[in-house]
Amino acid sequence: MGRRLKHWGWGYEDRAPSAAQLREAAEGIRARLGFGGEVEKPVPLEAVELRPPRLRVPAGGDGLYSDGRYERVTHALGKAYRDVVRGFRGRFEDPPDLVAFPRSEAEVEAVLELAAAEGAAVIPFGGGTSVVGGVEPRLGERPSISLDLRRLDRVLDVDPVSGAARIGAGATGPRLEEQLREHGLTLRHFPQSFELSTLGGWIATRAGGHFATVETHIDDLVESVRAITPRGTWESRRLPASGAGPSPDRLLLGSEGVLGVITEAWARVRPRPEFKAQATVAIDAWSEAAAAVRALSQSGLHPSNCRLLDAVEAELTGVGDGAHVLLVAFESAHAPVDRRLDEALEIVANAVHSGMRKEVRSRQGEGGAAERWRGAFMAAPYLRDVFVACGVLSETFESAITWDRFEEFHATVMETARRAAARASGAPEEGRGAPIVTCRFTHVYPDGPAPYFTVLAPAVRGGEVEQWDEVKAAVSEAILAAGGTITHHHAVGRDHRPFYDRQRPEPFAAALRAAKAALDPEALLNPGVLIDP
Amino acid sequence: MGRRLKHWGWGYEDRAPSAAQLREAAEGIRARLGFGGEVEKPVPLEAVELRPPRLRVPAGGDGLYSDGRYERVTHALGKAYRDVVRGFRGRFEDPPDLVAFPRSEAEVEAVLELAAAEGAAVIPFGGGTSVVGGVEPRLGERPSISLDLRRLDRVLDVDPVSGAARIGAGATGPRLEEQLREHGLTLRHFPQSFELSTLGGWIATRAGGHFATVETHIDDLVESVRAITPRGTWESRRLPASGAGPSPDRLLLGSEGVLGVITEAWARVRPRPEFKAQATVAIDAWSEAAAAVRALSQSGLHPSNCRLLDAVEAELTGVGDGAHVLLVAFESAHAPVDRRLDEALEIVANAVHSGMRKEVRSRQGEGGAAERWRGAFMAAPYLRDVFVACGVLSETFESAITWDRFEEFHATVMETARRAAARASGAPEEGRGAPIVTCRFTHVYPDGPAPYFTVLAPAVRGGEVEQWDEVKAAVSEAILAAGGTITHHHAVGRDHRPFYDRQRPEPFAAALRAAKAALDPEALLNPGVLIDP
Repeated sequence: MGRRLKHWGWGYEDRAPSAAQLREAAEGIRARLGFGGEVEKPVPLEAVELRPPRLRVPAGGDGLYSDGRYERVTHALGKAYRDVVRGFRGRFEDPPDLVAFPRSEAEVEAVLELAAAEGAAVIPFGGGTSVVGGVEPRLGERPSISLDLRRLDRVLDVDPVSGAARIGAGATGPRLEEQLREHGLTLRHFPQSFELSTLGGWIATRAGGHFATVETHIDDLVESVRAITPRGTWESRRLPASGAGPSPDRLLLGSEGVLGVITEAWARVRPRPEFKAQATVAIDAWSEAAAAVRALSQSGLHPSNCRLLDAVEAELTGVGDGAHVLLVAFESAHAPVDRRLDEALEIVANAVHSGMRKEVRSRQGEGGAAERWRGAFMAAPYLRDVFVACGVLSETFESAITWDRFEEFHATVMETARRAAARASGAPEEGRGAPIVTCRFTHVYPDGPAPYFTVLAPAVRGGEVEQWDEVKAAVSEAILAAGGTITHHHAVGRDHRPFYDRQRPEPFAAALRAAKAALDPEALLNPGVLIDP
Repeated sequence: MGRRLKHWGWGYEDRAPSAAQLREAAEGIRARLGFGGEVEKPVPLEAVELRPPRLRVPAGGDGLYSDGRYERVTHALGKAYRDVVRGFRGRFEDPPDLVAFPRSEAEVEAVLELAAAEGAAVIPFGGGTSVVGGVEPRLGERPSISLDLRRLDRVLDVDPVSGAARIGAGATGPRLEEQLREHGLTLRHFPQSFELSTLGGWIATRAGGHFATVETHIDDLVESVRAITPRGTWESRRLPASGAGPSPDRLLLGSEGVLGVITEAWARVRPRPEFKAQATVAIDAWSEAAAAVRALSQSGLHPSNCRLLDAVEAELTGVGDGAHVLLVAFESAHAPVDRRLDEALEIVANAVHSGMRKEVRSRQGEGGAAERWRGAFMAAPYLRDVFVACGVLSETFESAITWDRFEEFHATVMETARRAAARASGAPEEGRGAPIVTCRFTHVYPDGPAPYFTVLAPAVRGGEVEQWDEVKAAVSEAILAAGGTITHHHAVGRDHRPFYDRQRPEPFAAALRAAKAALDPEALLNPGVLIDP
C-alpha cells in the first residue's frame, strides 16, 4: 500500500512535522496571531480506547471487510476542526463497526444486503474529508458499516470528442487527474480537499471547485451519474443538457449518501489550459473592492479566478501588505486571454475610486502573489493540524448572499464571529490576543458573492469541542438571520442540520423524506444526514 | 380587455390573415414546399360541440371562475400541431369544466380546496403554449379546473444591485419585459412562445431561451421560486448559489405543475445590452459546420448566440443560398464585444477546410441575415396556423446529444423522420412532393449540441392527428434509441410520457412519485403529466 494516512487530522503520516518543526511553527503562530500555547501531542493510535465492533467480518468476504483498529479509527470522523481535535485527543466515540472496501458495484450491493440483514446503517465514505459530520456514525445503538469507495478509482472511459470521461466515484483528485493527464485532459476541479477527496464525495456534497464563475460547483461538470440504491440502480443518460422533467442528477447532487451510493459518473473534462493571464490588485477600501467584484461578476467576462481576500486574510496568507487583494485570472486551452484580463482590469479600475495602489501582473509560470496564495490555500488543512497541536481554534463558515444584502451580511457575520469567538475563548474582543476573523470570496455570481469566513481564536484546551459548538451556533444563526445559505459548498451533514432544516422549504423537506422512504425504506443509508432517519 | 386570443391556434384574433391573404400564402407554400392543398376554414367557436360543464361556478366567486364557452375552449388544448389541428376542426373533446383566474395566492388555495371538495383535478395554465399536451385535461370521467395564472402578472420587486426581480408567475414575456424596461432591465429570455408564454410556465417546463450557451434554460435565470402545494407554501431563499442539500428549485424546475402551482419567482435580470457583434457564416459541408460549432462550444468564449441552420432550413427561413448557415453573436451591456467575435470567427475558420464562402458581419441595428432569421423564428407559430389551414403537416423534435454520437444521431433522426413522414403522408421519400426535414442547433454545450428537427409533409386531411401520432412515435423512438433526450426544452407533458418513462432512471421515477404523493396525496395537480395519477 505504501503511504498511510494519519489516524487523526489531515494527510499522510510521512508528511507529519517533527517535534522540533512543530515547536518552531507554534512560535511563529504565536508571534503572528497573538495566541496559541505549548505544543501538545496527539493520543497515539494504540492508546485510543475503541468500542469493540458489534458486527462480525462475514466469512469468505475476501478482503471486502475489515474490523481493524486503524481502519475503524480512520473512518470514525471527518475533517472538521471538531473532528481533528477529537482525533488528536483520542476521542473516537462512534467508530463504525466494520469498514467495507468494495471493488465493484456487486460488492456495494453485497454490503447493503449485509447491512439490511444486520439492521446496520451504511455510511458512504469517499475521502472522509467532510467538515460537517457527514461521514460520522452518530447512531447510538445501531451498528454501522463505513463504505469506503476508494477502490473504485479508475478512469473507465474517455470521450475526447465531447470532452467527457467516465470515472469511478472513489477516485481522489490526484488519482483521477493522473489518469486524465495520459489523455491530455483535466477535470480541473480543485476543492481545498483535492488531495484526499473523491469524485463521488464531490457529487454527493456539491463540492466547490477551482472556477470562480460559471462552473463553480461539481454540479456543472457532471454529465451523468450512476448510483446503487436499495431499490435498484439509478443511472442517468449521458446528455449535454435535458429538459425532461426535473433533473435526476440534480437530486443526487447534494444527496450526501442518503438516496444511494454513487459509484461512477461521466464528468466534463477539457484540455489542459495553455494560456493564462492573471493579475493581483490591492485595494484600500473594502466596499470598493466588493463593488469591483460585483462589476466583474456582472460583466459577462467569466474570469476563471476572481477571489477577493480581505486585508487580514491577505496578510495571513502572505499575499498582502495591508490592503485587500483581488486575484483575477483567465485561462484557455486555445487562445491567449490577455485581452480579457485587460477588460477585467478596466472594469476594476472603474469601480475603485481611491487607493487602488498597485497592480501586479504575472503570466503562467511566473509565480507571484496568485501562486503564493494557491500554495497557502492547498496547505491550509495541514496547517490546521498544527493549530490543534498548539492550542489555536480554527473554523470556517461559508455562505452565499445577494449583492443588495452583502454589506450588512458581511458586517453582521464578522461581528458575530468576533464576539462569539472572544466569549467562547475568554479572550478580548479587540487588540492583542483577540480572535481573528477574516473574509474572502471563493466564488462569485452576477447576483451575489460566496463569502468565506475564517475564525482563529485561542483554544480552550480540552474543551475545544464545546467552544467550537458555541461559536458555530452563534455564527450559523447570524448567517441564517441575515439571509444567507448555511453552506455554499461544504454540505449539510449532521452539523448543519438544525440550520438547514430551517432554511429549506418545508414541502421540499417532505418531498425529500418521501423520496428517501421510497428508495431506502429501511433507512440503511447515512441516517441522520439531511433528514431524520 | 381589448384584444382577444383566437379560440384555436396561435395569437390574437386581430392578427388572423384574411381569406385572400391565406389563399396567397397557400400558393406560396405550395410553390416552395411542393405540397399543400386548398385553404380550409376553421370551425367557428359557436359551432364547436362542447360537453356541458360538470362543475358549477361556486356562488360568490367574484369572477374567480368561468364556465363560459370561449374560456373553456381556449383552455382545452395546448399549441402542438396536433392541438392546433384539432382546434381548427372544432375538436375540443376534453375541455376543462371550469376555468379559474386567481388574483392572489389565497385564490389559488381556494381553487385547490374547491377541487379537493369536488374530486376535480387542477391544471396549472400559464400561456397555454404547451406543445406536449401539458395543459390538456385528458382525464376521462374526472372533472377538471384549468387554473389560469395570467392575472398574477406584476413585477413585484426589483433589486437593481444584484440584478434580480420578483415577478408574478403569470406574467407573459412581453408583460414582464415591459415592466422591467422601466428599470432599464431585461430578463432576456426569449423562447419561441415568448409572446404568450409565462414565467411560471417557463419554470414548470424548463423552457429554453435566447442564450445559446451558459444560460440556456430558464433554470439558470432563477434565483428562487415560490409555489403553492396542497401541503403548504414552497418558497426557497433568494440565493446566488447554494450547496445545502439537493436544490429545491431544481425539483420545481421541470415539475410541470404536478408538485405545486408556481406563483412567483425571483429571476436574474440584467441591463439591456448596449454592444453587439454578430456574424453569419455560410459553410458548404455539414460535418465541418458541426465541427466549427463544437470548437466554438469548447472555446470558453460563451457566445450569446450560436445557431447552426442546415441548408434547407436556412433557405426556408430566408437566410441561406444553398449552404449551411452559422449565426454567431456576442453582446454586452458594458463593453464592445467585437474582439470576442473576431476570436470566434478565427475558431470557425480553423475548423472549416473548404467552402466557407462568405462572412457577413453586421453590427447592432444593421439588420442582416441574423435579424431576418429572428423574424422568421418569432413568426413561426403564426405560420403554423396557415399550414394547418392549407393542408401542411408540421412538427418539430428537439433533443440533445453528446458530440461523439452526434453524426450518427443526426443521420438516423433525419432519415427516420423523412421515411416516417413519407409513409404517414402517402408521399414519396425523395423529390418533388416528398416531406421536408431540416435541422438546426438551438443551444450548444461543450459536450454536445441541442439539435432541433422540423418536419413538413402533405397533411392527410381530416386524419392529421393519426398521421402526426405515427410520425411522432417513429422519430421519438429513433431519438431515444440513438441516445438523445426526448426533450431539451419542450417538456414532457402527456405526449412525451412513453419515451420519458423509458429515459429516466427508475429509482428517480420512484422518488418523484413518492414526492408527489407526499405533497399532493389526492393527485389534484395535473394528473398524468410526468407520472401516473
